[in-house]
Amino acid sequence: MSDLVGQYFDAAVAHLRRVRAEEAEPIDRAAVLLADAVADGRRIFTFGAGHSSLAAQDVVYRAGGLAVVNLLNVPGMTGVNVMPAPLGSALERVSGLATTTLDLTPATAGDLLFVISLSGCQVMPVELAAHARARGMHVVGVTSLAYPGRVGSRHPSGTYLKDHCDVVLDSKVAVGDAELRHPGAGTGFGSVSTIVTSALMQAVVVSAVGKLAERGITPPLFRSGNVDGGTDWNAELMAEHADRIYYAF
Amino acid sequence: MSDLVGQYFDAAVAHLRRVRAEEAEPIDRAAVLLADAVADGRRIFTFGAGHSSLAAQDVVYRAGGLAVVNLLNVPGMTGVNVMPAPLGSALERVSGLATTTLDLTPATAGDLLFVISLSGCQVMPVELAAHARARGMHVVGVTSLAYPGRVGSRHPSGTYLKDHCDVVLDSKVAVGDAELRHPGAGTGFGSVSTIVTSALMQAVVVSAVGKLAERGITPPLFRSGNVDGGTDWNAELMAEHADRIYYAF
Repeated sequence: MSDLVGQYFDAAVAHLRRVRAEEAEPIDRAAVLLADAVADGRRIFTFGAGHSSLAAQDVVYRAGGLAVVNLLNVPGMTGVNVMPAPLGSALERVSGLATTTLDLTPATAGDLLFVISLSGCQVMPVELAAHARARGMHVVGVTSLAYPGRVGSRHPSGTYLKDHCDVVLDSKVAVGDAELRHPGAGTGFGSVSTIVTSALMQAVVVSAVGKLAERGITPPLFRSGNVDGGTDWNAELMAEHADRIYYAF
Repeated sequence: MSDLVGQYFDAAVAHLRRVRAEEAEPIDRAAVLLADAVADGRRIFTFGAGHSSLAAQDVVYRAGGLAVVNLLNVPGMTGVNVMPAPLGSALERVSGLATTTLDLTPATAGDLLFVISLSGCQVMPVELAAHARARGMHVVGVTSLAYPGRVGSRHPSGTYLKDHCDVVLDSKVAVGDAELRHPGAGTGFGSVSTIVTSALMQAVVVSAVGKLAERGITPPLFRSGNVDGGTDWNAELMAEHADRIYYAF
């Protein structure tokens, strides 16, 4: 019997090692943007559609995470719990949905937006990134550069997410996001995109935390609710940054 | 300057290697339950609350994934987009929410439920797993066994998720889910839980795919919408399994 589990972990580890080796420089540039935004009192949002939303949510409202990172919650696009599920994929081709959501936030020039899209070719991420930049926001894109050229852009401009970013973090996930094959399976399987994309987002956050600390700024990190005083600390943190936290009263 | 990015990737890779080495046997047992459920026409659900929901969503409705895996979508618990966000954490302590949701599905004895909870100590995952087992369902728990003993159970029984499962996959994530430290940071940071938990879920899926293929059963895998014929194949797959797919009309 084939060792698919071993092959899967090998693929995930190889992917993480590759992005660590090859993306160190853009991770650092993204971390500078994030540290600057935290230090300068800027607003910070993350966005992804469908499965690309999972890594966006991974850095929001969590112990050991930055309290000032907000989710841009576009209706029907956050995760895979929209009903029916194919509506989520279909809405990525609808112009205006994510941009309208962004326009109803207080985000303005100099604020920071992370846009996560595995393929980077759908209308929604392209349009959102272009719109945010037109408003003067800084945009960090997390996408796989394996897609452009292999998969056509669905945006009228023919451009991809990568074309509308200040910094691009390349997840290097192969087209189809299926690392494994089996003669009896009919198609590829074994997705690594959430693992790699979450790692890239977390890497940017840990790097920004270090940069803030080394500037003498205490990073606004949530503490674990399981440690003494954690809950009180977190409440004070949210009160202190209430003017740019949009996920609580 | 400290190499926090390098430390973060090292921690993630070390974690993946450790679960690969130490969790091979429970991954195999969970994959047998999943392959049997697919082959026998059983209903399959995944659940997690808050950030633990991200890995649950990672194996639902995706290219290279099994079409018959459904998300148990408990209101306010899927991801971190409930407003206000602290409500999500608070609802984990409310008895009856997840169990009521499960009772409104057609799930019955012999069906399969994955319950993901990093700490495994909150009311919701404990209650849900116990309730599902009382109904005769098989339960696979994905949790960190570092928590029981270190963090008290919030369930009246004093038990943890691990105590109500047919198979436990131990993510081995340390209490607090913070791999890194910095003298200027005030608290730990650098979460690996989504990476490790997603890898465990994906590993179970790829192993089940292999088991089905080796039994001569074509695994019901979605194809990429980016390949020729993928969309038609997927529509046929959903029609074929419509009696146990609950995320579409």
